[in-house]
Parts: sequence; structure tokens; C-alpha cells
Amino acid sequence: MINWNNLDTLNAYKKLLSLKGQVNLSQALSASRVKEYQTPMAAGLAYNYAAKEVNEQILSVLAELSAEQQLIEKYQALLDGEVINTGENRKVLHQLSRGQAGKDVFFQGKNLRDFYAGEQKKIADFAASVHSGKIVGSKGDRFASVVQIGIGGSDLGPRAMYLALEQWAQASGKKKMEARFISNVDPDDAVAVASSVELAKTLFILVSKSGTTQETLANELFVKDLLKKAGLDPSKHMIAVTSETSPLANNPGYLASFYMDDFIGGRYSSCSAVGGAVLSLAFGPETFAAFLDGAHAADKSALESDIRKNPALLDALIGVYERNVLGYPSTAILPYSQALSRFPAHLQQADMESNGKQVNRRGEAVRYATGPVIFGEPGTNGQHSFFQLLHQGTDIVPLQFIGFQESQAGADVVVEGSTSQKKLCANLSAQIVAFACGKQDTNPNKNFPGGRPSSLIWGKKLTPEALGALLAHFENKIMFQGFVWNLNSFDQEGVQLGKVLTKKVLSGDMDPALKAYAEIFGL
Amino acid sequence: MINWNNLDTLNAYKKLLSLKGQVNLSQALSASRVKEYQTPMAAGLAYNYAAKEVNEQILSVLAELSAEQQLIEKYQALLDGEVINTGENRKVLHQLSRGQAGKDVFFQGKNLRDFYAGEQKKIADFAASVHSGKIVGSKGDRFASVVQIGIGGSDLGPRAMYLALEQWAQASGKKKMEARFISNVDPDDAVAVASSVELAKTLFILVSKSGTTQETLANELFVKDLLKKAGLDPSKHMIAVTSETSPLANNPGYLASFYMDDFIGGRYSSCSAVGGAVLSLAFGPETFAAFLDGAHAADKSALESDIRKNPALLDALIGVYERNVLGYPSTAILPYSQALSRFPAHLQQADMESNGKQVNRRGEAVRYATGPVIFGEPGTNGQHSFFQLLHQGTDIVPLQFIGFQESQAGADVVVEGSTSQKKLCANLSAQIVAFACGKQDTNPNKNFPGGRPSSLIWGKKLTPEALGALLAHFENKIMFQGFVWNLNSFDQEGVQLGKVLTKKVLSGDMDPALKAYAEIFGL
Repeated sequence: MINWNNLDTLNAYKKLLSLKGQVNLSQALSASRVKEYQTPMAAGLAYNYAAKEVNEQILSVLAELSAEQQLIEKYQALLDGEVINTGENRKVLHQLSRGQAGKDVFFQGKNLRDFYAGEQKKIADFAASVHSGKIVGSKGDRFASVVQIGIGGSDLGPRAMYLALEQWAQASGKKKMEARFISNVDPDDAVAVASSVELAKTLFILVSKSGTTQETLANELFVKDLLKKAGLDPSKHMIAVTSETSPLANNPGYLASFYMDDFIGGRYSSCSAVGGAVLSLAFGPETFAAFLDGAHAADKSALESDIRKNPALLDALIGVYERNVLGYPSTAILPYSQALSRFPAHLQQADMESNGKQVNRRGEAVRYATGPVIFGEPGTNGQHSFFQLLHQGTDIVPLQFIGFQESQAGADVVVEGSTSQKKLCANLSAQIVAFACGKQDTNPNKNFPGGRPSSLIWGKKLTPEALGALLAHFENKIMFQGFVWNLNSFDQEGVQLGKVLTKKVLSGDMDPALKAYAEIFGL
Repeated sequence: MINWNNLDTLNAYKKLLSLKGQVNLSQALSASRVKEYQTPMAAGLAYNYAAKEVNEQILSVLAELSAEQQLIEKYQALLDGEVINTGENRKVLHQLSRGQAGKDVFFQGKNLRDFYAGEQKKIADFAASVHSGKIVGSKGDRFASVVQIGIGGSDLGPRAMYLALEQWAQASGKKKMEARFISNVDPDDAVAVASSVELAKTLFILVSKSGTTQETLANELFVKDLLKKAGLDPSKHMIAVTSETSPLANNPGYLASFYMDDFIGGRYSSCSAVGGAVLSLAFGPETFAAFLDGAHAADKSALESDIRKNPALLDALIGVYERNVLGYPSTAILPYSQALSRFPAHLQQADMESNGKQVNRRGEAVRYATGPVIFGEPGTNGQHSFFQLLHQGTDIVPLQFIGFQESQAGADVVVEGSTSQKKLCANLSAQIVAFACGKQDTNPNKNFPGGRPSSLIWGKKLTPEALGALLAHFENKIMFQGFVWNLNSFDQEGVQLGKVLTKKVLSGDMDPALKAYAEIFGL
């Protein structure tokens, strides 16, 4: 039987609180520790935590915490289709969108694995018809570009995944179409994107689960106007990704419609039709399938109950130790890979929208810190930007590095005896040690205190499989942390009030302070 | 006479500490306060702080703090050319790159305002020759694209400014050339950018003050190889922006060279030749000049000693109150303007690299928090991402909103009775009130605590002048905060250790732990 308890009621947590400040990183970090504090991940990746402020005793109490809070049992229940999103009375099934790691899951008599796989197949067939030229634009042009119109989870994840695979696809001959994204209700966003493509050769994907997202509907109309002005038939240039109950479903205004459902939250929808349509069109269905395979392998590895062999679980628990015992309020995501330039922005949503909450699953206020602020930029760019504060600021920010032995495109240049890829990896290695160990200097300006913890996820190359595994790792990490904090990580009630007040502004029914702000903008 | 004192030695600071928690935002925010707590900025912008946790008493003590810490006197000394960057024995002259607000500043007999203005003129003449087709590529093609190669301050600021004006320029007929940016040493970055332009029609700008930046030199060679392979003469396709003492200066390998100097830090260099070359080429010299005019006007307004009439100073002081009295560890920058999509990333560097320090100007450890973590994304995108945590998370994050009455491109669409621009502004107004006032709900999941402070910078439209004023506002805010904390905001010693260790990896001379990490990457 599963018990949903607050973190501060757990015996292991009380023990953990007594283990603050045990590890002096600059003394602890050794070559043997770098080799030992590492666990394999799916798709050939590995999670290295040698530069985290943990030791055998802390890891052992974290294992107790995992058992006491029944983290694996809760994950298993989620996989088996229990209603984990209790606030909205919904199952949580994004893992099922990429494979089956639990029992068969039915809803209203429908096997949902079959449903998700069926949509993936429909998308694959549609993409093949676009690529073969069987489906063309309304003036007979073959489609060369695809533009996704969506916001939040319908934008950040798919966009980050597209950018992550673009150079890989180019180099391996898998690039089928160029993709762009329109998200913001700011009309300048749609103007800029629409003017960067040839409309006659462009397929638009409208993505909104509810079919009522304000930004997305506004941008849809904006694009349809442009298409009409260009003498094109919008219904031949637009497909929809939505839920079967939305106004966009089975709508003759779209060339095709693909479906997801309420059991996949927007921020977890990259593996559903939301990511599937754009990625299959851009890189081919087999690339998207490989991405799902990597994610599914990571989901399976997250079922391991030994925390030392379960990278997502271990990453989650170390993060809880840093947040709740060491008191660090933010975490930086630092991929040493230009392909992952928007991966931190995606994780910012995935993490902060899931665990940025102050009430538990029963709606009671919690008395401990929950989700941290997440931010990040790719290295080496970040080194020339905000790393100054990370090295010498007054607050400690835990770091999550990501790196690969090889670049995606393969093209490189040797300057002063080393390739750029080698320089990239050398910088990454150097930063981990610089943060952990610091350096004493008689000039206090040049003194580095060290003791700044980081983890490293690394692999040979960022392939579709590796990207899927990386994405699922973080999704599962966030899920485990939500379980530890006893939160419902799968709703987002915090976005509602702004919507309500926006409607008040637009309808003119405002309280005085809101009216004063609206007047600033001439509303 | 100027005294450089730590914040915690000031009488006003001791008073300020006793004023914690005086303001209940949800009660305090009223229509009259929205009108009253606002001060005009340069270029027609305004700074509104009605939704900040301040009141008359707190503002009055902040004014005392400003006087006691001699903030205006210190700024005046900086403008007058005193050596403010004491650690590196340098003047701090980025404000002088856009106009003269203090005394004449000389170095080694040279009037530096004349020097900066002279470089601006040289760039303007060069850009005019490129635009007129007098200067063409090595195969005779007119230049259509410009690619800046630089990292950190040579990338983030110029890139953010380019994106901020791209749609404005397009709509107003000022767009002369398309710009792209290569920054990361990851070779996939250069591959992606280079493949997105026609090399024969592309001018590259190599930007490195020292002429020794590892990433930039590697990317230069990468690009030169590509140019040669395309049968083009690199020396006819590349200009340099550097210091007069660097190896890139007066080098026949470049079509032209433009200069800056050690008195302008990378993160403050958007108004120097570093931003000037790419912005003048992309949008014309008169657009760059207008941008400088806006920045200069903001610099002059920052000399006002009445904090209620000095938006940069007021913003800085309120930030200090939030950081040191209220204890908030991070700040979000939230422009409701797609054009400002990378402005938060630029401010992340400008702020965190300037004030992410734990020793004061004399090298003594300070016992108070300094620069916060800075992050942000444009609205409304952020609303569908991390705003959940901002509304309902366990930590409070102060917010800096930016918005404009009008879009840049002007194209728009009416859906459900309102334009997209109107929706954008309605969302912004709604968010400020939602954060400040919250909303009680019997369902604790839907309860919004409120009390989450924000400021708003707003204007009619994001023009070059407005952008310059906006940039200078934040630069001056950061400067004032550095003065309050008694930091040297103008060096960045925290980036050095990583460089030293990277060289060790590349030369093979490593300590065992570093070697263990390097081996992960096959180094």
C-alpha cells in the first residue's frame, strides 16, 4: 500500500538533516571517486556525481529516504495507470507515449498504449506522404518547411528537441524539412517567423490540447490571413495536434489531425503527437522512433530500486539534499553542446511548472522548500557570461553539466594543436574541477573558494536515442522529486489567475489597480 | 571626498534592516499608487514600482543609503575618468562610448571621447561603403549577410540588440543586412551558422578585445577554411573589432579593423565598436546613432540625486532592499516583447558577471549577499512555462517586467474582439496584479498567496532610442548596486581558473581528478 507523506514526516529526512556539511568537496574529489561515483544511463549515457557533496553515509540515508517515501512504488503505480494527478483526477501517461513499462492502461475501454502508438503510426504515414510529394501545398509545391504554432509545452520541448537534432540530421542525411516555431502572442513573433519561410512550401502545425489556447488561436488566424493573402488555401497548409474532444478535432479546416489526451501534460508532451508531428516531418519517422526508444529505455532504468543504479532517482535525491538540507535555491543546467541551446529553457518549464508548488497532494501547505529556480545556457558560452557568479558569488548554485565526446556535424578545425571539440570537452572537465576544488590565492580577487557541486551526464554523441534518454532522465528526476516533496507535479493551477485577470482586462471589467495598469497600455 | 565602505557599515542599512515586511502588497496596491510610484526614463520610457514592497518610509531610508554610500558622487567620478576598476587599474568608460556626461577623459594624451566617436565614424563610413556596393566580396558579390564571431560580451549584448531591432528595422525600411552570430567553441555552432548564409555574400566580424580568445580564434580559422574551400579570399570577407594593442590590429588579414580599449568591459561593449559594427552594418549607422542617443540620455538621467527621479538608482536600491533585507536570491527579467527574447540572457551576463562577487574593492570578504541569479524569458511564453513557480512556489522571486503599447512590425490580427498586441498588454497588466495581490480560494490548489513584487518598464514602442535607454538603465542599475555592495563590478577574475585548468588539460599536465574527467572525454 502506498502512503503519501510529507517529506518532513520521514525518519530518513530527519537523519539527513543531521548530515549537513559532511563533505569537503575540494578534499573529497579524487580520480578514484570520479570513476566510482558514476552510474550508467540508457542509450550509452552515464551519470557522474563525483563532484556532488555526498558520501557513503549520505547516499545510504538517501536510499532509506527513497524506500521510506516509496518512490519506486509510486512510479510503478504511475506506469500502471493509477490516477496520480489527483487534483485533476487524471492518470499521468507521458511514459506510455514512448513504450510500455507497466501494466496495460485502459480508459473508457481504450488501450492507451495502442492509442499513442496508433497516432505515432498515423503521423509516420502522413510524414512519408509529405516527404514523397504525395501531399503537396495548395499550389502544388512540395513542402520544404514546417512551422509549429503552439506555446509552453507545445513549443519549448519540441523546439529544444528539434534544435538538438538538427545538425545530427543534417550530417547523417536525415534532414527532411526545416522547422520553425511561433509561440508568443506578441504579433512580432508570427511576423518574423512567417517572413522567414516560403508560404507556398510551408506546412503549419497547430498544437493546442484544449483547442482554446489564446496565443495559439490568435497566431493561427494570423497565419491563415497570410496564407489567404498569398492565394493559398489554409486547409491544405495546416494540420492540428489536439485532443479528440477539442474544437480542432475532425475539423475540415485541417489537412489532418493527430491526437493526444489529458493524461499527457503539455510539458511532458515531446514524445506524444505534440513533438511527434514536427520531429517526424523534419527528420523522418524513424528518427522520432529512435528518440522514443531512448526515452523508453530511460523509463525502464528508472524502475531500479537501488539508488546507486538508478540515475534519475539518484539525481532527484541528491537534488533534494541540496535543496532541503544544504538550502540551495536554484540549479543551473549547463550543456556543453550547442545543439542543446534551448534544452535548459525546456527543463525550466518541465521542472518549475511541475514542482513550483507550496501545497501537497492533499492541498495542505508544506513547510519545506520545493522546486528550485532552473536556468542555464550552453557552455562554453556560459563561461563568458554568468559563471563569474557561480565561481565567486555569495550563493552556491548546484550545476548540472552535460557533454559529449564527439560533435554532431563532425566538421572541425585544429588550432594550437587541438580541435574545437577537444577544447569544448577540456573546458567542461576544467570547470567541474574548478568549481569543486577552487584555488587558494594570496590575491583575494583571484581566490576561488571551491565547494561548488556539480554532476555530469555524458555520452559519446548526441543522437536521437541519447536525446530521448536525456529528456526522460530529467522528466523522471522531476517526478521523483515531486514524490519526495509529496506534491502533485502534474497540474499547473498557478497559471490560471493570470488568465482570469487577462479576460477581465479584455472585457473591461477591472478592479481599479488592474485598470490603472491597463491604462498604461492604452487598454 | 569619496569613501568606499561596505554596506553593513552604513547607518542607513541598519535602519533598513528594521523595515522588513512593512508592506503588504495585496493591500497596498491601488490605482493611485500605480500612478504615483512611477518615474520617467529617457527616450519616453517610464519605470513603475507600484508593485514593489516599498513605502514612503523605506524609500526615504533608501535615499539616505544612496547619500551615505555616495552613489551619485561615485558615478560622477566614474564618468570623469577616475580609475574605478581598481583591481585592473582601469578607468570604466562604457558610458563615454555613447556621449559625454562628465569631464573630458584623457589617457596617454588621447581624448577618449574623440577616440570612441572616431571609431563610430569609421564604422559608419565602412558600413556606407558596404551598403552602396563600393566594398564587395572577393568574387564581386554585394554583401547581404554579416556574421559576428565573438563570445560573452562580444556576443550576448550585440546579439540581443540585433534581435531587438530586427523587426523594427524591417518595418521601417532600415534593414540593410541579415546578421548571424557564432560564439560557442562547439564546432556544431559554426557549422550551423555558416551553412545558413551564402559565403560569397557574407562579411564576418571577428570580435576579441585581446585578440587571444580561444573560442573566437578557433571559429575564425573554421570560417577562413570554409571561405578558402569556397574559393573566396578570407581577407576580403573579414573585419576585426579589437584593441589597438592586439595581434588583430592593423593586420592585413582583415578588410578593416575597428577599435575599443581596456576601459570598456566586454559585457558593457554593445555601444562600442563591438556592437557598433554589426548594428551599423545590419541597420545603418543612423540607427546605431539613435541607439547611442537613447543610452546617453539614460546616462544623464542617472546623475539625478533625488532617487525618486532617477529610475536606475531607484531600481538598484529597491533591488538591494529585496536582496539584503528581504533575502530574495534571484530576479527574473520578463520582457513582454518577442524582440527582447535574448535581452534576459544579456542581462544575465551583465549583472551576474559584474556583481557575482564575494570580496569588496579592497579584496576583503563581505558578510552580505551580493548579485542575485538573473534569468528570464519573454512573455507571454514564460506564463506557459515557469510562471507556475513564480506564482505558487515556496520562494519569492522579484520580477522585472518590460512592455510596450505598440508592436514593432505593426501587422496584427483581431481574434475575439482584440488584437494580439492588446492581448499581450492585457496579459502583462494581469500578471502584475496577479503576482502582487494573489487570490484567496477555498481550494488550496487554486489559492494564490500574492505578495510577489514586480516593477514595470514601459514605453510606446521599442525603437532604437528606447532600446538604448533600456540597456543603459540596466547597466547603470548594476553599477549602482556594485557601489552599494562596495564591489569592483568591472573585473571578472572568476573566469580565470577555468581557463588555467583548460590549458592544463590541453597540455596534458593534469592533477589526477582532472585527468579522470578528461579521460571521460577521451582526452
